[in-house]
Amino acid sequence: APLTRAEGPLFPPGVRATADGLMAAALDDALALELVTSLSTEIGPRLAGTAQEARARDWAVDQLKKLGFSNVRVEPFAVPLWVRGDERAEILEPFPQPLAVTALGGSTATDPEGVAGDVVAFSSLAALEAAPDGSLAGRIVFVDEPMTRTQDGSGYGVAVGKRRATAYEAERLGAVGALIRSVGTDSHRFPHTGQMRRLTEDGGAGGVPTAALSAPDADQLRRVLARADQVSVRLVLTPQLLPPSRSGNVVAEIPGREAPEEVVLAGAHLDAWDLGTGAVDDGAGVAIVVAAARLLKALPEPPRRTVRVVLFGAEEVGLVGAKAYAEQHAAELEQHVIAAESDFGAGRIWRFDTAVGQSALPTTAAIRAVLHPLGIGPGSNSARGGPDLTYLREAGVPVVGLIQNGWDYFDLHHTPDDTLDKIEPAALAQNVAAYAAFLYLAAEVETDFRK
Amino acid sequence: APLTRAEGPLFPPGVRATADGLMAAALDDALALELVTSLSTEIGPRLAGTAQEARARDWAVDQLKKLGFSNVRVEPFAVPLWVRGDERAEILEPFPQPLAVTALGGSTATDPEGVAGDVVAFSSLAALEAAPDGSLAGRIVFVDEPMTRTQDGSGYGVAVGKRRATAYEAERLGAVGALIRSVGTDSHRFPHTGQMRRLTEDGGAGGVPTAALSAPDADQLRRVLARADQVSVRLVLTPQLLPPSRSGNVVAEIPGREAPEEVVLAGAHLDAWDLGTGAVDDGAGVAIVVAAARLLKALPEPPRRTVRVVLFGAEEVGLVGAKAYAEQHAAELEQHVIAAESDFGAGRIWRFDTAVGQSALPTTAAIRAVLHPLGIGPGSNSARGGPDLTYLREAGVPVVGLIQNGWDYFDLHHTPDDTLDKIEPAALAQNVAAYAAFLYLAAEVETDFRK
Ligand SMILES: [Zn+2]
Ligand SMILES: [Zn+2]
Ligand SMILES: [Zn+2]
Ligand SMILES: [Zn+2]
Repeated sequence: APLTRAEGPLFPPGVRATADGLMAAALDDALALELVTSLSTEIGPRLAGTAQEARARDWAVDQLKKLGFSNVRVEPFAVPLWVRGDERAEILEPFPQPLAVTALGGSTATDPEGVAGDVVAFSSLAALEAAPDGSLAGRIVFVDEPMTRTQDGSGYGVAVGKRRATAYEAERLGAVGALIRSVGTDSHRFPHTGQMRRLTEDGGAGGVPTAALSAPDADQLRRVLARADQVSVRLVLTPQLLPPSRSGNVVAEIPGREAPEEVVLAGAHLDAWDLGTGAVDDGAGVAIVVAAARLLKALPEPPRRTVRVVLFGAEEVGLVGAKAYAEQHAAELEQHVIAAESDFGAGRIWRFDTAVGQSALPTTAAIRAVLHPLGIGPGSNSARGGPDLTYLREAGVPVVGLIQNGWDYFDLHHTPDDTLDKIEPAALAQNVAAYAAFLYLAAEVETDFRK
Repeated sequence: APLTRAEGPLFPPGVRATADGLMAAALDDALALELVTSLSTEIGPRLAGTAQEARARDWAVDQLKKLGFSNVRVEPFAVPLWVRGDERAEILEPFPQPLAVTALGGSTATDPEGVAGDVVAFSSLAALEAAPDGSLAGRIVFVDEPMTRTQDGSGYGVAVGKRRATAYEAERLGAVGALIRSVGTDSHRFPHTGQMRRLTEDGGAGGVPTAALSAPDADQLRRVLARADQVSVRLVLTPQLLPPSRSGNVVAEIPGREAPEEVVLAGAHLDAWDLGTGAVDDGAGVAIVVAAARLLKALPEPPRRTVRVVLFGAEEVGLVGAKAYAEQHAAELEQHVIAAESDFGAGRIWRFDTAVGQSALPTTAAIRAVLHPLGIGPGSNSARGGPDLTYLREAGVPVVGLIQNGWDYFDLHHTPDDTLDKIEPAALAQNVAAYAAFLYLAAEVETDFRK
């Protein structure tokens, strides 16, 4: 049969048809929804280093073995263990009322009765950084910087700076505590947690006790500040930094038919913040990559190269699993031919980004053309490839980005509202279809994606 | 000038034009938005009987005096005082995880360490009521009855039964605690509070400790129950019933030009649940009726009849202010010619219901025709007129219902998410326009709405 233009000369005979078959099967496959339902129901919250995360690893090993994957294993590593305590805040004067807050990951604690002080507001992290050392003794800092809603999540990179740095900047200024407007795009009464910049290897952090306010609470505090010369707030945060604990990456494989030493990696992260049930971040990603790989497993013969699923531990608290993987697999990173991670919820994939060598671009263009019927358009060749791929990418591993529609992602991200009902089954299936086709094609071709 | 058909012969010359002018002015008037912003920001939560509710009364008296109303006063009464304590729940076995709960108003308390028991689910209050006495010793009841989303709020009347009765039914069965799916229509992680049926005059209640689960948590518990033979839950609720406290209704008037003893009443309620800031329930109603009456105040001469604004206290905890008003004004209820209450958020009014005598229907039809350009259509003559009008209606006072679009109202109702950002200014202004025209016309005509 003559080759179609989209198929081009790059794929061996029958490969395009197999990819099409995988996509069709994925759109009718219930496994991803079953997996994310099971993980978010039977485990739920699973903060790095906790017993819940350990249960999630057991769950993953059990599922992957039952699905028939090879070499299913946990690759352990140590992780700092920070656990949430009490958290509350209130305006004391002039308009007494509670504020909805949550501690940022890694925050230091207040005394049980909290800290109190007059609020000083900054419209941006840059404004906070410009304030002179020691100029806010006894005060509570409020960084009221908004986040922009975007389809591709690019607003996050801008907004997350204040979450990472505020505690340390506030300490430099002499403040007793700090509040930030949540890194999020919703207007619900959910503060968004998330990790602060980690300053020490053992996870010990300095900085003042720091919490996020929900968007309506940040609006409220802004209005109160506009109506009063002096506004005092009390903040109670009693998280604890416990001795380092155990975490681990869960790995499973479909050994390659002809080049088993060559690895196509599909990643997601298994841990989730303690506030929600980790359905969207990143139960969806776990479900997508496992369900996609399972479809490859069901082919009459395995693809040429090995497909490796890596469910990273301890992503949320600072890419600890990603770093451990890169260290533990340093000797074989040269053999990682390409990698992708699903960690942006369950919205439909709309764009295919790559970070590959120039001579590999015809292959990635041909792969993209196969994905086109799923509504996936071309992107750039400057993909970042997902947070857990950071160290691999820095080590030269080619990555792709199957970019999801994240318009609503930061409405839920790192809040109690990250629950199963937020996942649209048809969009989840579209993700599985795209991953299945991508993983299959990348594992079947002979292209060196580095070149 | 010839009378239009809509105007009919019922309105004296110039009255229709004045009503049209009031509506036009209302759509350009910022007062309602200023009032609800001020109340929800400077007071915020204001549970009946608390210092916050007292501050709300002071706020209201201050605002009404500044706006030039006459006879501004607080009419005090006593109210049971129930205050929220700690509240949390968790699945103990087989899938340990927290559940988002809030105590129902009036709930009894558990010990500080809570109660624990195996969960028994019922799909409806009717199913719970059918269970035999003493059949659930040591268990925790879960009433998983959904609520239907409707434009007119009619789903609430069906769903609220479980909130009112579950604690007492569970006690009859021997259970140690109870959970209900929230009375609400959203799928966010906010449980909805609200008053249980009050069993004694002093506010003392029996019943087992009872909380609402958010919709995602009710879904989660339902899924867990489907996956396990036995599911145990711990529930901690430590609310307190304190000695009865003070509340009050805030009253203000525009004395009538010709018939000052005849009262057209515009109501809303000043108290709000402690979880949110009471912007939507019922800061919006307070703002709407005050802003509408202020437009009448600005007319060259006052309307024929007295327009009386009543901002009821202690609505949420069982219509305590409504009952006090009816008792305190029993002697003049015959002179209450008609009444309306705004207590369904800030959605646009789309329907005009009445409960008036047959001979008054041409007048109310003519009033409705004046409101027509606001998008307000005809309704029934079986209006209920708002919760605080219950005792007046029962005493024979004619009422109308300016029925708001409540499609989204029960997404927010009685949750922390009842905040200012949920109010659409243009819809709020449409409400003011409708109330201004209605109050003016009802106060200007000579119609006896009872006849
Ligand atoms: Zn993630
Ligand atoms: Zn995350
Ligand atoms: Zn209300
Ligand atoms: Zn209410």
